Amino acid sequence: MSGHADIAVAGLGVMGANLALNLADKGHLVAAYNRTTSVTDEFMAGEAGDLGVLPATSIEELVGMLSRPRVVLIMVTAGKPVDAVIDSLLEHLETGDIIIDGGNSLYSDTDRRQAFVESRGLLYLGIGVSGGEEGARHGPSIMPGGSRKAWEHVEPMLKSIAAKAPDGKPCCEWIGTGGAGHFVKMVHNGIEYGDMQVIAEAYDLMRRGMGMSPAEMSKVFARWDEGRLRSYLIEITSDILATELDGQPIVDVILDAAGQKGTGKWTVISSLDLGQPTTLVAEAVYARIVSSDPDARKRAAAIYANGPGTLGAVTSDDVESALYASKIISYAQGFRLMRAASDEYGWDLDLATIASIWRAGCIIRAVFLEDITAAFLRDPSLPDMIEDDFFSGALEDAGASWREVVAGAAMSGIPAPAYSSALSYFDGMRSERLPANLIQAQRDFFGAHTFERADRPRGEFYHHNW
Amino acid sequence: MSGHADIAVAGLGVMGANLALNLADKGHLVAAYNRTTSVTDEFMAGEAGDLGVLPATSIEELVGMLSRPRVVLIMVTAGKPVDAVIDSLLEHLETGDIIIDGGNSLYSDTDRRQAFVESRGLLYLGIGVSGGEEGARHGPSIMPGGSRKAWEHVEPMLKSIAAKAPDGKPCCEWIGTGGAGHFVKMVHNGIEYGDMQVIAEAYDLMRRGMGMSPAEMSKVFARWDEGRLRSYLIEITSDILATELDGQPIVDVILDAAGQKGTGKWTVISSLDLGQPTTLVAEAVYARIVSSDPDARKRAAAIYANGPGTLGAVTSDDVESALYASKIISYAQGFRLMRAASDEYGWDLDLATIASIWRAGCIIRAVFLEDITAAFLRDPSLPDMIEDDFFSGALEDAGASWREVVAGAAMSGIPAPAYSSALSYFDGMRSERLPANLIQAQRDFFGAHTFERADRPRGEFYHHNW
Repeated sequence: MSGHADIAVAGLGVMGANLALNLADKGHLVAAYNRTTSVTDEFMAGEAGDLGVLPATSIEELVGMLSRPRVVLIMVTAGKPVDAVIDSLLEHLETGDIIIDGGNSLYSDTDRRQAFVESRGLLYLGIGVSGGEEGARHGPSIMPGGSRKAWEHVEPMLKSIAAKAPDGKPCCEWIGTGGAGHFVKMVHNGIEYGDMQVIAEAYDLMRRGMGMSPAEMSKVFARWDEGRLRSYLIEITSDILATELDGQPIVDVILDAAGQKGTGKWTVISSLDLGQPTTLVAEAVYARIVSSDPDARKRAAAIYANGPGTLGAVTSDDVESALYASKIISYAQGFRLMRAASDEYGWDLDLATIASIWRAGCIIRAVFLEDITAAFLRDPSLPDMIEDDFFSGALEDAGASWREVVAGAAMSGIPAPAYSSALSYFDGMRSERLPANLIQAQRDFFGAHTFERADRPRGEFYHHNW
Repeated sequence: MSGHADIAVAGLGVMGANLALNLADKGHLVAAYNRTTSVTDEFMAGEAGDLGVLPATSIEELVGMLSRPRVVLIMVTAGKPVDAVIDSLLEHLETGDIIIDGGNSLYSDTDRRQAFVESRGLLYLGIGVSGGEEGARHGPSIMPGGSRKAWEHVEPMLKSIAAKAPDGKPCCEWIGTGGAGHFVKMVHNGIEYGDMQVIAEAYDLMRRGMGMSPAEMSKVFARWDEGRLRSYLIEITSDILATELDGQPIVDVILDAAGQKGTGKWTVISSLDLGQPTTLVAEAVYARIVSSDPDARKRAAAIYANGPGTLGAVTSDDVESALYASKIISYAQGFRLMRAASDEYGWDLDLATIASIWRAGCIIRAVFLEDITAAFLRDPSLPDMIEDDFFSGALEDAGASWREVVAGAAMSGIPAPAYSSALSYFDGMRSERLPANLIQAQRDFFGAHTFERADRPRGEFYHHNW
């Protein structure tokens, strides 16, 4: 059985529904299905009906609506539900058909699923989609990985719904085989954790360390949004700080207990697997964990009664520099992680292209990504952003303020884990000698683990008879 | 077939060989086997021969040497080799026999293996053994978990070879079922990473920030070893700094590129799985990773040519306080992690007992562990060491110096990731309000993730129409 629809969307949650509408908007004939039929009905009662979306009440009906090769976009919760939908689809799809997973799947699951689906004669894509509800509806950033042949078939369709960067290019380019697309999306989300944490620290330093009101801070963020920090997250922070609820600034109403989902944690685990120092994401995830138990914090606050002091001579301009420098470090770490993954998994990632498709549509979109794109275009093999001329100049410029802010935070008692960790990492990387020689001596002392010598070639191992 | 030996040791690497000798020393009849027979021969040619150890050339022969119920201690590399030895043993062992894995196995593997071995009618223990070569030979700290009935049988034997704490108690007590023993050993090793990092930072701050020589620092560490930091690692650091190689201080000869094995990484991953903020171990693991690429650091050092400055008024006494405070935080995080694991896996861990069996034999042995034991005896349900009177007093006392050191490190450009991260964590925990409210606002703004309200009960979720 074969129909006329260009693409099927299976799963009509927030992201699936909005992607389906986006596809329909761009002239594609969309078939839509949700396991719970009432969700499909509700979806069809809205814009979807006007846009000519075709509702299906079963996977079989959904597949029957599609022209060949059939393209099905799965938009369900990551994990077992994806495997379940794939199994159902395989009962009805045929050789050459294309299954796309557009959720936040773990990249190793995507590797496995591509191999499985291809072993059945079909093609598979795992695509990262960022931009939240708005992005999905009007133009997300899309990171496709998996079967290259499938990409060639769906490229025009995916590019048609993607966000457009300031230079007009769609924020959707081939990433690599297997789980490459989902890996890059995972790193995007890890960086998003870091971006949100560096903004939160700025807010906290200005609030507790400088006594600024939400309205005052809203203006500061609006000003920052005119400069090098110009970005979606800075923009909405300014909006949030100007928003009231029940006659109060909404930030004073919202409980300070942050949640976290899988991608931040996965980024940290990947960084350990690949031996990459992704400290910013780790500190951001841990900061959310610390926040998540307000009762424990209340008990500790009662014990350590002397609250934080002020930041003294530190200004909001200094904080802007600390945020900017920390952000450079966070992205430097994220791009190192992608480089290492590319080498390990043979993905041949093009880091300039990745930076370029994050310029619009996604949560971390920012003018900053133009500078990163330029850095990796200047030197596609750049091992670390901190070695790039533009960014090294920026770090040198921001350095004095950054150090003042970290020192001021330590003295005043306001936690700035991301700024501090970023600075420690930077100072570690620019240290020709680190104290790891002592650690190696200890390990050889108690465990005969051996060490290399500074005056001998790498790879020669010595044991001292302590 | 049945013999007279009390215990078999399978695997005669550094740890296995020394545990076998320790057992023989204590009057147990030991049968010993290694897959490579020449290793067994070499082992028997030494002390083992004099101590009456019985060599076996096959698993079958090894098993035949044992009295019933047979007890076999596996001392091979963690991972697949353990499963392979278990499989071989199961061909020859019988109902009621006991298999013990004394390596650094991942706790979830131990869970799985206990279930598997018990399904075959045998008993299983996964025991953590710490103390390096010396400890294995003369008295390690032992953390046994698995089949309680097996523990009751081998308790006298294991206690006879364990280290004795200053109060004479053996550093070997029942930890819990399944992988509990290996989990606790993993946390021990994670804490060891942290301990080594906080010592390394002290060394680096005194070396680069105060211009002290290794010989001078050796004296400082010797002095610290007389006080609250008294511990094995501080003691050997003093020894190491006084050691020369080829006419130079040995630390100046050893390459500053540190290795890392599985347990540090596993501790971090477990902390993320259990939602616990184990920042010190994470920063320690990342610091080793940063150290591991000296070439990258040389490139960055050439770009950022202005080297670190001095620490100004910061003294080595201040550094001692920073080290001590950071160590408290590191252990507080480690004990939180064990508490969370105990709740999650139903292990009913006794934290005072765990602290007490780390007082001697293991790498992290220290007078400090007497204070931790006392804290958990005072309040067995203590949720966090920073809430204990003794430790909160200690943190208050150390606070001013700790802050000066972190601020001084930031201003001078000497990385102190563990001290900084510990301070950020401490300041986060004692903050009644953190900026996670802004993070929750952002997440609700772009992803409709909802938030809780500070003025409403927990568990009620709200979405704002931004």
